[in-house]
Amino acid sequence: MHGLIDSMIIREFDNEALNQKKDSAILTIGNRRIAFTTDSYVVNPIFFAGGDIGSLAVYGTVNDLSVCGARPLYLSLGLIIEEGLDRTILERVIKSAGSAAKRSGIDIVTGDTKVVERGGCDKLFVNTSGIGEVYYERLSIDEIRPGDAVLVSGPIGEHAISVLSAREGMEFKTTVKSDSAPLNKLIRKILSASRNVKVMRDPTRGGVATTLNEIVSSRPFGISLEEEAIPVTGGVRQACELLGFDPLYLACEGRVIIIAARKDAAKILRRSATIRTAGREYHRRDDRRLQRQGMP
Amino acid sequence: MHGLIDSMIIREFDNEALNQKKDSAILTIGNRRIAFTTDSYVVNPIFFAGGDIGSLAVYGTVNDLSVCGARPLYLSLGLIIEEGLDRTILERVIKSAGSAAKRSGIDIVTGDTKVVERGGCDKLFVNTSGIGEVYYERLSIDEIRPGDAVLVSGPIGEHAISVLSAREGMEFKTTVKSDSAPLNKLIRKILSASRNVKVMRDPTRGGVATTLNEIVSSRPFGISLEEEAIPVTGGVRQACELLGFDPLYLACEGRVIIIAARKDAAKILRRSATIRTAGREYHRRDDRRLQRQGMP
Repeated sequence: MHGLIDSMIIREFDNEALNQKKDSAILTIGNRRIAFTTDSYVVNPIFFAGGDIGSLAVYGTVNDLSVCGARPLYLSLGLIIEEGLDRTILERVIKSAGSAAKRSGIDIVTGDTKVVERGGCDKLFVNTSGIGEVYYERLSIDEIRPGDAVLVSGPIGEHAISVLSAREGMEFKTTVKSDSAPLNKLIRKILSASRNVKVMRDPTRGGVATTLNEIVSSRPFGISLEEEAIPVTGGVRQACELLGFDPLYLACEGRVIIIAARKDAAKILRRSATIRTAGREYHRRDDRRLQRQGMP
Repeated sequence: MHGLIDSMIIREFDNEALNQKKDSAILTIGNRRIAFTTDSYVVNPIFFAGGDIGSLAVYGTVNDLSVCGARPLYLSLGLIIEEGLDRTILERVIKSAGSAAKRSGIDIVTGDTKVVERGGCDKLFVNTSGIGEVYYERLSIDEIRPGDAVLVSGPIGEHAISVLSAREGMEFKTTVKSDSAPLNKLIRKILSASRNVKVMRDPTRGGVATTLNEIVSSRPFGISLEEEAIPVTGGVRQACELLGFDPLYLACEGRVIIIAARKDAAKILRRSATIRTAGREYHRRDDRRLQRQGMP
């Protein structure tokens, strides 16, 4: 379904920026290179351990700009609200989006609210669009070479399991909290440490496996992973065993996949360990276990 | 409800751009002044005489940028689709958005699609966000003075009646077509003719009356209208009489209200008469009937 719609859109709206098929369009305005992106959030339920639809919408768009080598600056916020939605729910979501904006160091500068009839939408949908200023221009799938390192910035699948637990009312030994977090500061540190980063992606829908497959789908080589080197926390592992999921296909909302020249891999991992993110403790303890795998 | 949410948002996201409370945020990036705006479209039904949710979403955002004195450049398109939506419907809407983008001279450069469960949304919601480059910086409600002229660029209320007819299956003697259209070229002509335009608004939700009330709500004077000078077509008039509506409160999607120094009013009207818009024929015939009314 998504592939069908994407190809329909690319055919109808044919233009250079869209055809790049990146998480953000890269545009020139005046003397600056600008990244521009949009995302709608329809997560159900709207509250889950470690986040909610408000913070998720802010971090998601901050991250889509960040993985394109841009410094996120400004966000818009569009709300579609089901008539009769409890005011305290709305207030919680807006407060959460505000805190997420502060934590990310960006401003929400414009917005729009639509109210639809009861049954017309699933409580609350959020759209965020964002503008950032590009500071690293070397990102391109065409730069990837066999032998490059593939890194992931922290444990995977926590977001998906957190949302699923909240939806189905499931409990595991330990509560799995969403990894939803802003990646802009982490990525800034990484890109100031290495000029040999070639591709970054946040593995949201479809998880790490789908994201990596998309990256190499048009390339004459594949990516092989060392499964035991990919960080998965106990809670996620337990949920996956119970439910028959593969953590590689579970969505993350605060992790970044980095493909870089192998010689810079250790430097990038060291640099990312100094950042305060949801994955911070992990980085410190388990740097050596992070995925670092060449291509055949 | 909308007022409540607006005040909640302004309190939480407090920043200079948002506090301007314009249709677009005006931002500085590099050496340029940028306008940035967002709007969600939840129109029901999604097809109506004179347009559909796709063209409406493009023109709406083009117009929100235009009335802020910006040249619209780039749009994003976010789709929230109900599972099972007929593919031909989606194709029609995407084609229509593509044609609207061409007609407006802008590019749709980035997009996002979410599919929600059946019953999770009302067929199709569309969000468009837009970036424009500001070329006219003199627009401010603070510049309005008693005695200024208030102009409207064409007949009012056609969009609202067109949507209502399609929703309720009503027929009038003549089919009322939505006025949905891009205003960027019209506004560019107007602003190149006069340096004394003070405020522009497209009277969408709530129509001309609500828009004008919002403009003067914080000012120590009001606006009085010459009702007989405000253009209303026969079809809209007939529908209003039948249904007890006041055309002043009906949404337009291709009209602009202009508040300007009275001395430039005639020049602005002449200039707008040379533009190919939905209101073109109207302008030629009825310039003298256009609303032109001082404030007390």
